[in-house]
Amino acid sequence: MTRHTTWPGRWTDTGVFVCFEGGEGSGKSTQSRLLREHLEAAGHEVVLTFEPGDTAVGRELRRIVLSPETGELSDRTEALLYAADKAEHVDTVVLPALARGAVVITDRYVDSTLAYQGAGRTLPVAEVEDVARWATGDLRPHLTVVLDLEPSAGLGRFEGRDRIEGESLEFHQRVREAFTTMAAADPDHYLVLDARAPIEEIAATIRDRVEALL
Amino acid sequence: MTRHTTWPGRWTDTGVFVCFEGGEGSGKSTQSRLLREHLEAAGHEVVLTFEPGDTAVGRELRRIVLSPETGELSDRTEALLYAADKAEHVDTVVLPALARGAVVITDRYVDSTLAYQGAGRTLPVAEVEDVARWATGDLRPHLTVVLDLEPSAGLGRFEGRDRIEGESLEFHQRVREAFTTMAAADPDHYLVLDARAPIEEIAATIRDRVEALL
Repeated sequence: MTRHTTWPGRWTDTGVFVCFEGGEGSGKSTQSRLLREHLEAAGHEVVLTFEPGDTAVGRELRRIVLSPETGELSDRTEALLYAADKAEHVDTVVLPALARGAVVITDRYVDSTLAYQGAGRTLPVAEVEDVARWATGDLRPHLTVVLDLEPSAGLGRFEGRDRIEGESLEFHQRVREAFTTMAAADPDHYLVLDARAPIEEIAATIRDRVEALL
Repeated sequence: MTRHTTWPGRWTDTGVFVCFEGGEGSGKSTQSRLLREHLEAAGHEVVLTFEPGDTAVGRELRRIVLSPETGELSDRTEALLYAADKAEHVDTVVLPALARGAVVITDRYVDSTLAYQGAGRTLPVAEVEDVARWATGDLRPHLTVVLDLEPSAGLGRFEGRDRIEGESLEFHQRVREAFTTMAAADPDHYLVLDARAPIEEIAATIRDRVEALL
């Protein structure tokens, strides 16, 4: 996957921004909840959030991009709707929380767009990245945790599938490879874990890595 | 206004793409309708369309960006929602019609985004342009007709104002200036007309210019 390299990247000095990425059914919501409980017990303010859909306009956009009733969308339309969700999310949820020193944990962020709309839909990833970086002011997570899982294992857990989950296995395999390739290129800001390991073992590894950032 | 110059621009070889731009109440819909009637009477296939909102997903996006109930949106969110509308519009309405040789007349296009979300909202215009050009594959109109009007004259015609119409007079003055500046830089592809001239006089000038493209 070709990545775009001219963006400078921006990490805030206040707060800690942690992102969970991975395919469907990889345990992102379980692990983000466990991390929140651990950090709150230690006295930290934690904001647990997600993309797409954790703002008022985002909820409408989430319905559009995920509902099977939407039907076909141009690939660029879809990527731009995800980018609009991100712009609102970063400006109204993520940045204000980081500014007051909170730990922000998001279930999905820019890498999901690069993986699903870029590698999955096969739009040029550098172009999708340009749009997503612009949408977010290129705000980067201090740490992105990738829960890596063979797509057939994760998708098996779902009954009713949305517009994205219902894509082909090849689509989801391109998505998986995109996540691990991005992580391999920047080990300082990524942690890749086998999603099939015991839940508590995964949680402990994540805790150790996040605590080093506090 | 600083424009971005690295985009190549793309004009189709089949069909004719005409765009109407201008502030609120400048007579775009009247003139586009008159142009359609004239061309259809001469035997041409004409597709009369508009932005935002002339696709299924576009109708939902139009409601979001224009309804006062939406309230505040991040400037980038708004620009990306308009871009998503454009991507769907170009891919599913404009390009198919041009491919079969039709005359496509659109009420608003990329220049509106540059004027309203760029100059109006004061986002960097080159950045807004990058996103809008990506959304549209940089498809350009063969001719853009700018109906130029002092904002206070056009806005006076409205009772209930939407999210954009309700912006300040200074906002709408920046929008007006953006349109005329873009037109002045590319006279081959623009026609600027005083919107206060008699309707039939304006219509005749537009007809002459469009007929030269057929």
